[in-house]
Amino acid sequence: MHILITGAAGFLGQRLLHRLISRKELCGQPITHLTLVDQTQAAVPDAPDITIHNDAVDITAPNALDGVLDRKPDVIFHLAAVVSSAAEADLDLGMAVNFDATRALLEGCRTRRLNKTRLVMASSVAAYGGDLPDVLDDMTALQPQTSYGTQKAMCEFLINDYSRRGLIDGRVLRLPTIVIRPGRPNAAASSFASSILREPLNGEEAICPVPLDQALFVMSPDKVIEALVHGAEVQEEALGKFRAFILPGITTHVAEMLEALREVAGAEAVARVRHEPDARIEPLVASWPARFETAKANQLGFVGDRDFKQIIDAYVAEHR
Amino acid sequence: MHILITGAAGFLGQRLLHRLISRKELCGQPITHLTLVDQTQAAVPDAPDITIHNDAVDITAPNALDGVLDRKPDVIFHLAAVVSSAAEADLDLGMAVNFDATRALLEGCRTRRLNKTRLVMASSVAAYGGDLPDVLDDMTALQPQTSYGTQKAMCEFLINDYSRRGLIDGRVLRLPTIVIRPGRPNAAASSFASSILREPLNGEEAICPVPLDQALFVMSPDKVIEALVHGAEVQEEALGKFRAFILPGITTHVAEMLEALREVAGAEAVARVRHEPDARIEPLVASWPARFETAKANQLGFVGDRDFKQIIDAYVAEHR
Ligand SMILES: NC(=O)c1ccc[n+]([C@@H]2O[C@H](COP(=O)([O-])OP(=O)(O)OC[C@H]3O[C@@H](n4cnc5c(N)ncnc54)[C@H](O)[C@@H]3O)[C@@H](O)[C@H]2O)c1
Ligand SMILES: NC(=O)c1ccc[n+]([C@@H]2O[C@H](COP(=O)([O-])OP(=O)(O)OC[C@H]3O[C@@H](n4cnc5c(N)ncnc54)[C@H](O)[C@@H]3O)[C@@H](O)[C@H]2O)c1
Repeated sequence: MHILITGAAGFLGQRLLHRLISRKELCGQPITHLTLVDQTQAAVPDAPDITIHNDAVDITAPNALDGVLDRKPDVIFHLAAVVSSAAEADLDLGMAVNFDATRALLEGCRTRRLNKTRLVMASSVAAYGGDLPDVLDDMTALQPQTSYGTQKAMCEFLINDYSRRGLIDGRVLRLPTIVIRPGRPNAAASSFASSILREPLNGEEAICPVPLDQALFVMSPDKVIEALVHGAEVQEEALGKFRAFILPGITTHVAEMLEALREVAGAEAVARVRHEPDARIEPLVASWPARFETAKANQLGFVGDRDFKQIIDAYVAEHR
Repeated sequence: MHILITGAAGFLGQRLLHRLISRKELCGQPITHLTLVDQTQAAVPDAPDITIHNDAVDITAPNALDGVLDRKPDVIFHLAAVVSSAAEADLDLGMAVNFDATRALLEGCRTRRLNKTRLVMASSVAAYGGDLPDVLDDMTALQPQTSYGTQKAMCEFLINDYSRRGLIDGRVLRLPTIVIRPGRPNAAASSFASSILREPLNGEEAICPVPLDQALFVMSPDKVIEALVHGAEVQEEALGKFRAFILPGITTHVAEMLEALREVAGAEAVARVRHEPDARIEPLVASWPARFETAKANQLGFVGDRDFKQIIDAYVAEHR
C-alpha cells in the first residue's frame, strides 16, 4: 500500500501522517510506502517499516507531480490548498493551487491509468452559500460566496466526473469548521471558535466576537482525520452518483461551547473570554450554515463527535 | 452598444443574431456593433446601421479572443460549446471548449477591466443529476452525470465568482430541452422530443422511443432567445447571490405533445409517430428532471411558453 499525501506539512497533513504511521495499514493492507508532498519540507516521524519519500514541491509548477505519480500511489490524500483568506486576496493563487493543481493531479492519474487509485480530497462547508435553508442536506445547492468555496466546488465536480468516467476513484469530504485547532489566533473569521476554548484552557484571555446564541457546525481534528482515513476505505460501489458530501459535524452554539469549557476547566476559564461584538465578523459567521442532515455520510459509516464536551476533553488529553 | 456573440454560427447564435438585428437595440441603447465569433464563419443577414465583425476563430486557441475583446463589447452572449455527446466522447475537447474557453473569456475581460460588461451564458438542465427530488427548485444541488453538465456547472461557479468579485457582470441561464428544433433527427437522446412533432408536421414518419407518460421540461427556441435577450437586460442588483438559475420551461409529457400535434395537424399527423421503446434512450430520458419551481427566473421577469400548443403553433407559423 503506497500512500501519497499532498499538503503533508500542513495541520491536517501532519496529523494524518502520524495516524497512518501508527495504524500501519490502510484498506486492510500494510502501508509500505508514503510519499509526502508540500511546498515546505514536511516533518517526518520515525517509521522503521515504511519507505518515506519527502518531496518539497510546489504543486502549481508544470509537471510538478510527474515523479510522484510515477510511483503509482494506491491512495492519495489531497490536502494541499491555500486557505480562504489567501484565495480571496489573490484570485490567481487560489485558482492555481486550489483548482489547477487538483486538475493536474487528476490528469496525471489519468495519463498513468491510475484508475483504481483512491483520491480523497478535503472540500469545505465554505462551498455552501447564498440564501440557504435552515437545515441543509445532501441535495442543497452549492452557491459559494468566496473564491475558496468556488474553487473547492469546481474540484468536487471535476473529481466526480473523472470518477464517473472510471479515470480515478474519488471521494470528496466537505469538512465542517475544525475545532479546537492548536496554535495561535489568526486572521480567519473562524479563528475565535478555537480561540475561545484554547486560550482559556492555557490560562490566557480570548475575545468572542459573536453572540452567545451563534450556531456553528464543527468537528474535532481527531474526527476529521478518522473521516479522511474512512474516506479512503469506503467501497466505491457505496458512493452513489455523486462523490462529494458533507461530514457529520455537530451543531453547537457559543453558549454550549462555553458551558462545556466550564465543565472541563471551571468558571475561571470561562471568565477569560471577553465578549466584544465585531461588526465585521458577526455577519460573516451568521451566514455560515450550521445545521445539516448528513444522511449520506452517516450511511457510509462516517462518525462525528458525540458532543462538544468530548471535543474539549480530547484537546485537553492531547495537550496536557 | 457593442455586442459579442460566441457560437454565432450555431442554432441559437443565428436566431439570436437575427433577433438582435430586428430589435435594433439592447438595454435601451441602439446596437452599433456586432462581433460574431465561431469556428465556422457565421452567416450574416443585412443590417445597414450596424458594423459587423465576423471572425472565424477557434476559441480554444491561445489568445484567440484578444482582438475581439480589445473592441470592448458591452454585452457578450457566450453560446459556443460542444454538445453533450461530443463532450462525453472526448473529455479533452469538452474541457477545452466548454470550460477553458469560458475561463479564458473571463480572464480576457478581467485583464481589460471590462467589469461592466454583461456576460450571458447558456448553461443547461444537464447540470442537474443524481438522486433528484420530484420537483426541483433554485436550491437543488447540481450533481451532473455527464462531462457536458460538469463543464457547464464549473462555468456557472466561475462566472458567479468573477461577478461577485466585480470583474464581470455575469448571468447564466440553464436552458430546458429546446423543442421544436428545426433540422434532422440526430444522435442526441433528446432528438425524439423535436422529431415526433417536426417530422409528422412535414408529412414524415418519426419514432418515439419513450412511453406516453414520459414527462419533459421544455422551452421553444423563440422563448429561449427572448430569455437570452432578457438575461442581458436584467439589472445586476436583482440577481442576488448566485448568477445561475433555471429558465421557466414548461413541464409536458409525450401524450400531451401528441395531443397538441393532433389539434394543430390532425389525427393523420399523430398516426405518423411509431412507438418503439428504446432500452438505451428510455432510462436516460427518465432520469432527466422534468418538474421545476423556477421562482428566481419568474421573479426576474423571464417568461416561458404558455402551453405546448403555442410551441407547435409558433413552429408552424415560422416554417409555413
Ligand atoms: N482546517 C480547516 O478548518 C479546514 C476546513 C475545511 C477544509 N480544509 C481543507 O483541508 C485541507 C488541509 O487543511 P489544513 O488545515 O491542513 O491547511 P494547512 O494550510 O495547514 O495545510 C495546507 C498545506 O498545503 C501546502 N501548500 C499550499 N500551497 C502549496 C503548493 N503550491 N504546493 C505544495 N504545497 C502547498 C501548505 O504548505 C500547507 O502545508 C485543505 O485542503 C483545506 O482547504 C480545512
Ligand atoms: N439547444 C439546446 O437544446 C441547448 C440546451 C441547453 C444548452 N444549450 C447551450 O446553448 C448554447 C448554444 O447551443 P446551440 O444549440 O446553438 O448549439 P450549436 O452546436 O448549434 O452551436 C454551438 C456553436 O459553437 C461553435 N463552436 C464549437 N466549438 C467552437 C470553438 N472551439 N471555437 C469557436 N466556436 C466553436 C460551433 O461551431 C457552433 O456553431 C451552447 O452553449 C449549448 O451548450 C443548448
